[in-house]
Amino acid sequence: MKPIRVGLLGIGTVGAGTFNVLQRNQEDIRRRAGRGIEIVMVAARNTERARQLTGGQVDVVTDPFAVVNDPSIDIVVELIGGYELPRELVLKAIANGKHVVTANKALLALHGNEIFAAAQEKGVMVAFEAAVAGGVPIIKALREGLTANRIESVAGIINGTTNFILSEMRDKGLDFATVLKQAQELGYAEADPTFDIEGVDAAHKLTIMSAIAFGIPVQFDKAYIEGISQLQAVDIRYAEQLGYRIKLLGITRRTQTESGEGIELRVHPTLIPTARLIANVEGAMNAVLVQADAVGASLYYGKGAGSEPTASAVIADLVDVTRLATVDPYCRVPHLAFQPNEMTDVAIVPMAEITTSYYLRVYVKDQLGVMADLTRILADGGISIDAVLQKEPGNQVNLDIIMLTHQTREKNIDAAITKIEALPAVIGKVTRIRLETLS
Amino acid sequence: MKPIRVGLLGIGTVGAGTFNVLQRNQEDIRRRAGRGIEIVMVAARNTERARQLTGGQVDVVTDPFAVVNDPSIDIVVELIGGYELPRELVLKAIANGKHVVTANKALLALHGNEIFAAAQEKGVMVAFEAAVAGGVPIIKALREGLTANRIESVAGIINGTTNFILSEMRDKGLDFATVLKQAQELGYAEADPTFDIEGVDAAHKLTIMSAIAFGIPVQFDKAYIEGISQLQAVDIRYAEQLGYRIKLLGITRRTQTESGEGIELRVHPTLIPTARLIANVEGAMNAVLVQADAVGASLYYGKGAGSEPTASAVIADLVDVTRLATVDPYCRVPHLAFQPNEMTDVAIVPMAEITTSYYLRVYVKDQLGVMADLTRILADGGISIDAVLQKEPGNQVNLDIIMLTHQTREKNIDAAITKIEALPAVIGKVTRIRLETLS
Repeated sequence: MKPIRVGLLGIGTVGAGTFNVLQRNQEDIRRRAGRGIEIVMVAARNTERARQLTGGQVDVVTDPFAVVNDPSIDIVVELIGGYELPRELVLKAIANGKHVVTANKALLALHGNEIFAAAQEKGVMVAFEAAVAGGVPIIKALREGLTANRIESVAGIINGTTNFILSEMRDKGLDFATVLKQAQELGYAEADPTFDIEGVDAAHKLTIMSAIAFGIPVQFDKAYIEGISQLQAVDIRYAEQLGYRIKLLGITRRTQTESGEGIELRVHPTLIPTARLIANVEGAMNAVLVQADAVGASLYYGKGAGSEPTASAVIADLVDVTRLATVDPYCRVPHLAFQPNEMTDVAIVPMAEITTSYYLRVYVKDQLGVMADLTRILADGGISIDAVLQKEPGNQVNLDIIMLTHQTREKNIDAAITKIEALPAVIGKVTRIRLETLS
Repeated sequence: MKPIRVGLLGIGTVGAGTFNVLQRNQEDIRRRAGRGIEIVMVAARNTERARQLTGGQVDVVTDPFAVVNDPSIDIVVELIGGYELPRELVLKAIANGKHVVTANKALLALHGNEIFAAAQEKGVMVAFEAAVAGGVPIIKALREGLTANRIESVAGIINGTTNFILSEMRDKGLDFATVLKQAQELGYAEADPTFDIEGVDAAHKLTIMSAIAFGIPVQFDKAYIEGISQLQAVDIRYAEQLGYRIKLLGITRRTQTESGEGIELRVHPTLIPTARLIANVEGAMNAVLVQADAVGASLYYGKGAGSEPTASAVIADLVDVTRLATVDPYCRVPHLAFQPNEMTDVAIVPMAEITTSYYLRVYVKDQLGVMADLTRILADGGISIDAVLQKEPGNQVNLDIIMLTHQTREKNIDAAITKIEALPAVIGKVTRIRLETLS
C-alpha cells in the first residue's frame, strides 16, 4: 500500500520533533501501522529553517492553506497554536475531507464542539492525544481503556511549568518570583508565562478531559481557573508540616448540588496528602489520576510537554488515523468518547456549589480568645476542623493559625471567611487553599 | 443496530464482575460503543450459581463447546483459566469465525503464537487487555499509545499478591511466611500461592508485554523466573537503610551482548531507589514503567486484579471488538502490535548475559582483612562498588557486610560470588539481589 500523505502546519518545537521521530523510527512505525506515513508538505513562516529541518525532502510552503487545499494530502497535522487561524485551517481541512491531528488544546477547549460537529458531518477524524499531557496516552485511556466505567473524577497535574515551579519552591524554600525567573532561564517557562502560571493551559486540557470523561460538550467558559502566582512559600511549608504537598490540580468530577447532578470543573492550587502517588510527581512531569466505578483508581504519568514526548502523541494519532482512514466512521472511537447523539447536558456547577476541604491560614494578633472566635465561626457554618497548627512567623507578637477543614461547600467557607476577616484580632486577608484527599 | 451477542466461558470472580459491570453501566457503554453489548450465554460448571448470578436472563449451559459452537454468538469471552481446555476452546471459537476476549495470561504466554496465527488466518480478533495488570490499560498503551517509539524497556509490578506481601514485610518488619499466611486469610493470596509467589504469574504477563514492546513472538520458556519466597526480612531492612525498596519486578529490555542485540526477559526481586515513583506502589496495586525513545519514561498504575478491575479491561476489549468487528482486518491493531509479517527474531539472552547492578550480603566472621578480600575479588572481576554497609545482626562476633555494585554482567557477579563463598571468613551462601536504578 502507498504511504499515507501528511501535511504539517507549523514546524516549531513539536513539528520538528514529529518530523524527526517519524524519520528515525519510520521502520518500526511502518511495521506497526502496516503502511508508511510520510510528511510530504510543510507550511512554515520561516521556509529557510523548515527546509533545513526537513533536509530538502519535503515541499515547503508559506501559506498553510496551500497544505489544507492540496488534494494529495490525506492528513493535516495542525501545530500552529493559537485560536483563530488554526480554527479556520482545521475547518477548511475537514471541509476538504481530510483527517486532522492536532496538539492544540486551546483550539479544542474553545472551538471543539464546532470542529467535532464538522468532522462528524464530513466523516473524518480529528485526533488530539497530544493536546493533553503530552506523550502520556491519557486520551486513549479515557476514551477507550475505561469504556466499561462510569467515570467519577479526573484529577491531573497537567502543566509542567507550574509543577516545576512548585517542586522548586518546596525543595529550596524559595518564593514564586525567584523560581519563575529560574524556570524562564532554564526554558521551563515561557517569556510570557501567564497561560501556564495562571492555570489557563491546565484548564484547556481539563476541559477536554471533562468532556470525554462525562460525555458533555467542551465548556471552557464554565471552568474555574486559579493559578499559582499568589501562592506563598510559607503555605507550602505549613502544608508540608501537616503532611501535604501543594500541586496545581485540574479537577473535574460528578457532584450532587442542591438542584441535582452536576460536574465540577476547576483548576487551582490544591493540598494533597504526601502519601499519595500523585503528590510525588515532581519537576516538569505530568500525571492524571482517574477514579472510575469498576476499575477504581488508575494513574497515568509521563512527560507532558517537549518536542519528542509531544511528537510521540502526534504520531500515535497518525497511526490510528492511518489504520481507520478508510473504515465506516461508525467503527471509529467517537471524538468525545460518546456517540455524538448520546451526549448529555449535565451542567457545570458554579464554584460556590463545589464541595471540598480547605486549608485556611489566618494571621492574628496574639490575643486571648481568638482561637475560640475562629472555631465558633466555623462551627456556626457547619464546618468541622480536622487539624490546627499555630506558628509564630518571625516575630513574637502575631501568629499564623492554620486550620484544615472537613469537606464543605465553597459558599459555606466563603461566608465563614468573611466573618473571620471581620474579627478585630485578624490581620489582613485569610489565605484559603483547597484540599483534596484523593482517596 | 442489534446488540452484539457475547458468550461467556466461566463465571467466577472475573466473569461475575463482567456480567455485573455490563449490566450496571449498560447505558454508558452503549452510548460509547454505539451498539449494545449483551451476554446471552454462559458456560459454567455450577449452573445453579450461574443462573443466580445472571438473574435468569441468559442461557446457562455446562458444556463450554456449546457456546463456542453456537452460530448466534459473535464474541466469546474466555475466563476459565488454565491452559489446555481454554486453548481448545479459543482455537475452536476462532475456527468458527468468532472474536475472542480473554483474561488468560498463562494461555497467551504459552500458546499465544499459535492462537494469534489462527486468528490472523481467520480474520478475527483475540483481545487480551485483562491478561496484564488487570484494569490498567497497559496493552493499549504499549500497542497503540506508544506506536511512535522505539521501546527500550518495560519494568512492572504486575503481581498484586507479591507486592502486598513485600509491602507488609517492609511495613511491619515481618518475615515472608507470616505475611503470606495473613495474605491468604485476607484473600490476597490463593490457598496454593505458588504461581504468584514464585513469579510465574508475573512472568506470563511480562512475556506478553515483551512480545508487544519489541515485536517478537511470545517466548515464556525463555523467561528467567525467581520469586520472593526466599527473600529475608533483614535484606528488606538493609535495602531501606541504603535508600532502596525491594519489589518483585518483571523486566524486559533491549540489551547488547557480546554476540549482538538481544532482549532481557526476567522476573525477580529487585532493589529500586525509594525516590522512584514505582518504588512507592504499595499493597496489591500494579504499575508498569515504560522507557521509550521519544516519550521517555511513562508509568501506568492501578488495580491489577479483582473482579471489577479485571472486568473493566474485559469490557474495554468487548467495546473495541464490537467497533471493529466488521472492518477489514488490516485496519485493526495487530495482536502483537507489529504486523504479523513484520515480527523480528531478536533472541532472549540467557541470564548470564544480562547486565544489572547487585545487592550482595555476605555473612562473615569478624576477621581482620575480610573486607580487603571481598573488595579484591570484586575488583579482579571488574566490578565496582557503589556503597558498603557493615552491620552486626544480633551477636557481637559475626558481621553482615552489604555491598551495592555498579552494573556488570551476571556471569561476572556469579564468578565473584563463587570466590567469595570460598573465603574461610565467609559463612554460608552470599545473598544476591539484583538492583535497577530505573533512571
